[in-house]
Amino acid sequence: MVIELMKSHASVRDYKDQPLTRAQVHELVEAAQYAATSHFVQAYSIVWVTDEDKRKRLGELSKNPKQMEGAGAVFLMCADYNRLGHAAKLQGEDIVFDQAENLLVAVTDVGLLAQNLALAAESKGYGICYIGGVRNNMEEISKLVDLPDGVFPVYGLTVGVPNEANEVKPRLPVEAVLHENEYDEAKYAEILPAYDETIMAYYAARSNNQKTAKWSEQMATFLNKPHRPDLKDVLAKRGYLFK
Amino acid sequence: MVIELMKSHASVRDYKDQPLTRAQVHELVEAAQYAATSHFVQAYSIVWVTDEDKRKRLGELSKNPKQMEGAGAVFLMCADYNRLGHAAKLQGEDIVFDQAENLLVAVTDVGLLAQNLALAAESKGYGICYIGGVRNNMEEISKLVDLPDGVFPVYGLTVGVPNEANEVKPRLPVEAVLHENEYDEAKYAEILPAYDETIMAYYAARSNNQKTAKWSEQMATFLNKPHRPDLKDVLAKRGYLFK
Repeated sequence: MVIELMKSHASVRDYKDQPLTRAQVHELVEAAQYAATSHFVQAYSIVWVTDEDKRKRLGELSKNPKQMEGAGAVFLMCADYNRLGHAAKLQGEDIVFDQAENLLVAVTDVGLLAQNLALAAESKGYGICYIGGVRNNMEEISKLVDLPDGVFPVYGLTVGVPNEANEVKPRLPVEAVLHENEYDEAKYAEILPAYDETIMAYYAARSNNQKTAKWSEQMATFLNKPHRPDLKDVLAKRGYLFK
Repeated sequence: MVIELMKSHASVRDYKDQPLTRAQVHELVEAAQYAATSHFVQAYSIVWVTDEDKRKRLGELSKNPKQMEGAGAVFLMCADYNRLGHAAKLQGEDIVFDQAENLLVAVTDVGLLAQNLALAAESKGYGICYIGGVRNNMEEISKLVDLPDGVFPVYGLTVGVPNEANEVKPRLPVEAVLHENEYDEAKYAEILPAYDETIMAYYAARSNNQKTAKWSEQMATFLNKPHRPDLKDVLAKRGYLFK
């Protein structure tokens, strides 16, 4: 049943006007926190944005106005070493979190938390969407919700009662993703053109927003240039110095 | 039911000698792939390590011999821009993935995939454990399984039939993790000492490995020094240059 739930996932970007209650949000966040966490650091925080003006501004800054204003709940899923600093201070210690390791740990902790939250929400009949667009203006968004040193939003997550039903997109075949004992690049020569056909057929047949596009075309066009080149400096200002 | 499953999570480090079959692994990986992925990049690969010698060596390199040799399945959960490079080549393009943004995207994609895989496994009665220890010797482990440019193991994931039942660890209270509209550091002064008491009581009462320790003590001792300071250079060798 859990597996069927996972395989039914499609992002929802249009929600009914039914805000989640505090109790509903509490239940989802609590479940999410039981995900594994590296060395039990729990290096994450969630900012639930309920204020209308802030949601409007967040919509502008993340370039996702419809979801940020219309979802049943808007969360900023944040990497957080700040609270760990407070914990260490109780023991008279300072923490160090300026290594690449700390970034990997926090982004991973947020990922496991977020996917639990997303799936918990979907199990209740809600739709969800991750919003990478918060990294478009990470610094301004961090200021908007008063994030202190050591905290940054990795992505947003919107949750709500779906006002649309999207078809599930075909993923890469398992054999493209799963390697046994050694990584096998050679197999991509056959697998990727076949997957391009699968995706073309999916786009041509789906009920809305039909188009003609191969996966490899989309990836080539998207990844042939640098993305968000300012991000390293913004992360450094938040204390993540990539040492 | 999904929420109850999440809240029953405790890492399993001791497994019965019952390897997962290929069909079982296939089912878990397929479900995991339906997690959301940034711009549909699917920037992940999984190396399933079945070879006995490699599992032994992986146990030494990750400093987790018991799990790496004893689990029903051992996975290296990898960030992967290599396959995306192959996809773009089909279109005559080269990709760029040397920005901090690309690292966040890949580590996030792996996190959502991994948590789906973990939860899918737990829904089938398996136990799981994430192994951050693969970052102790990331370069040698990458060579052990022939990871090409653009691919690195973010962590391991072991899965198997549990040979132990561990109590669920109390997480931070929801109010410590959930902020509304603005991040509130002030609340930690009350919440963290109270959580220290919760954790002390948990460690004192649990059925095995009883001890006396506060969460803040553990965090202070763990985080008062840099961790894995070589990691940035290893990531750079894999093509993640933190530009």
